[in-house]
Amino acid sequence: MSTGDPLRGVSIVGIGQIPVQKATNQSLKEMGSQVLHLAMEDASVDRVDALFVGNMLADELQGQKHIATLIASEAGLRGIEALQVRAATATGAAALRMAYFAVASGEARLAAAVGVEKMSGGLATPALAKALDAKTETAVGATLLSQNARLMQMYIDRYGVSADDFNFFSLNAHRNARTNPNALFKDKKIFESVIRNSPVISPPLRLYDASPVCDGAAAVILTRSNEARAYTDHPVKILGSSVATDWFRIDDRDDPLYLFAAAHSAHEAFRKANVHRNDVDFFEVHDAFSIMACLLLEAVGFAERGEGWRMAADHKITLRGPLPVATFGGLKARGHPIGATALYQTCEIVLQLTERAGRNQVKNAELALLQSVGGAASTLLTHIFGV
Amino acid sequence: MSTGDPLRGVSIVGIGQIPVQKATNQSLKEMGSQVLHLAMEDASVDRVDALFVGNMLADELQGQKHIATLIASEAGLRGIEALQVRAATATGAAALRMAYFAVASGEARLAAAVGVEKMSGGLATPALAKALDAKTETAVGATLLSQNARLMQMYIDRYGVSADDFNFFSLNAHRNARTNPNALFKDKKIFESVIRNSPVISPPLRLYDASPVCDGAAAVILTRSNEARAYTDHPVKILGSSVATDWFRIDDRDDPLYLFAAAHSAHEAFRKANVHRNDVDFFEVHDAFSIMACLLLEAVGFAERGEGWRMAADHKITLRGPLPVATFGGLKARGHPIGATALYQTCEIVLQLTERAGRNQVKNAELALLQSVGGAASTLLTHIFGV
Repeated sequence: MSTGDPLRGVSIVGIGQIPVQKATNQSLKEMGSQVLHLAMEDASVDRVDALFVGNMLADELQGQKHIATLIASEAGLRGIEALQVRAATATGAAALRMAYFAVASGEARLAAAVGVEKMSGGLATPALAKALDAKTETAVGATLLSQNARLMQMYIDRYGVSADDFNFFSLNAHRNARTNPNALFKDKKIFESVIRNSPVISPPLRLYDASPVCDGAAAVILTRSNEARAYTDHPVKILGSSVATDWFRIDDRDDPLYLFAAAHSAHEAFRKANVHRNDVDFFEVHDAFSIMACLLLEAVGFAERGEGWRMAADHKITLRGPLPVATFGGLKARGHPIGATALYQTCEIVLQLTERAGRNQVKNAELALLQSVGGAASTLLTHIFGV
Repeated sequence: MSTGDPLRGVSIVGIGQIPVQKATNQSLKEMGSQVLHLAMEDASVDRVDALFVGNMLADELQGQKHIATLIASEAGLRGIEALQVRAATATGAAALRMAYFAVASGEARLAAAVGVEKMSGGLATPALAKALDAKTETAVGATLLSQNARLMQMYIDRYGVSADDFNFFSLNAHRNARTNPNALFKDKKIFESVIRNSPVISPPLRLYDASPVCDGAAAVILTRSNEARAYTDHPVKILGSSVATDWFRIDDRDDPLYLFAAAHSAHEAFRKANVHRNDVDFFEVHDAFSIMACLLLEAVGFAERGEGWRMAADHKITLRGPLPVATFGGLKARGHPIGATALYQTCEIVLQLTERAGRNQVKNAELALLQSVGGAASTLLTHIFGV
């Protein structure tokens, strides 16, 4: 409904990103302010009405709450609206959706979504594990890593594949990251043998099945579609935005290998955008773990159940394949600074759709799909973008 | 603009609250699910499209992130949208604003805002202090308590009043709480001498100048105004919703005793609602500290600078005064379970505006003002409600 009403159409008119790093000396507020200013410059504005910030771990790792206003103030934007939003590991996409809300509701003419995360500030794994149920999951030692390892093992057992059959997700991501100046693993040539021989960190999951701990920040500026060309010559429309949830614990789901929330939110987003999945030119997938990329391809319907891994193994997800995935390196190789991740992906999607992706360009890219996974796929955000 | 469009008008059609307690045995998800179900029952619905949850301290105190989806799942609402939102100590109001966004944008037909906080789970003060700047404020020992004590001392020094001149805020709040079944300090008769003789906890601030550490949860259901009567006979309209920020640190402000963000967000909310502050029948103020209640009365323009305390001392803020404040006990005596507070206040406003406030009823209450303070007044949310 919202996107059918031309007054409520929302477009991206500015992007800003800084290189993902293993550990940066910049503070959270400096990183957030920097990408906000980059995005405002890109949109040729010196102010926004509202700022929505995605961050998951600063409470523990930097001892910092209240970071939306902290960043607004650091950026010199006294007076503007500033709120923080979260959806565990899908937090960046939640910031995007809030900025979308602000513009679509008419409450803001220009809204910024900023994602920022410094995972280098302390022990990220226990803080990340708080995305699970404290009473019944983390209390018995579960982490996001162990839950994804369980899903991977279930998949291997059910479909008779091997851990190596997932390697091509990682290989594709690392290939694409090499030419992304903002990637953590840029210029790093990875061979399949490196992935195959990487250490097992939570059986059957190996180091190269998991995205890295890192720091990063990215931002986008949104406005009404009918005013977008006042700010930029290459606006990108948000054609659909949708959130769905599943039973919180994977143990409460009939079939943990079926990502209900991913299927449901994709269905809703396609309906709102009035497009079909076959129209999608590339997919920025949530490859925090290779099993998750595989299951998302299946949930959206790009692959049959039990066949998602084959899309990678058969090179269908490369930049020149029928469905390019993780075109700038994905979570695996660009990096996954949690609250910033979906905003990096949105920046990359804008570059693709406006033919500014350089050596990472997907040919004739007109429609992009973004999915963001919160926790063990209990929260799923789907966004669809077009020109 | 948004509220001028009849299609975008938003109303409250259900409320749910549970008694504030010093410490509850219920878990966060149980409390959140309970008030969500109470509010859904009140609106005669068994499902909502979207849930926005306000919570500030669970990361540290319960080791729990990702609580919106946790509550949605606990409530049996698999599939719905669920996101968490924060604005430090104004977090409950941020959840209300997000639900407002979701309905006003057309993305949700029925949206719930739930606030939940269990401050009893650990050391609340250091977690609350993370609402300040970790690098320059908490690093040198500042807390919300110490910052409010500084503001109070500045006020005393500038205007030549005494700490006792603030006592009537607390007295009024405790009086009103006595007949609120959901108040922490219900049935507790407090005399001015009790307040006057209470221990100094951060000079010049005494125990009774500060709101208590406690547990609580509250919820509201929002829908389009033009459909509200399908759900309830007594809908309440959200006439204006606005957020503004100030320079983050009080030390960076020209005059820390002028709450710029409170003045600015009130101005914007009045403009959106097309009403004047003189039309306000009662004010649910953010009396986390008595100095804050005083400064908010001045920032909105109900009192001249330096005269806010006098409104309390002159009994103008009692239930029968010209501007009743904290009509169900306020943060001081109903309690201030952070993420839930503004939703308790919204429930109370709905009861007042629909003449269901019982012994706390404000006569002829037709227009209500709510303000919510994040941190040291760096984030301010203003909401205006009417029938």
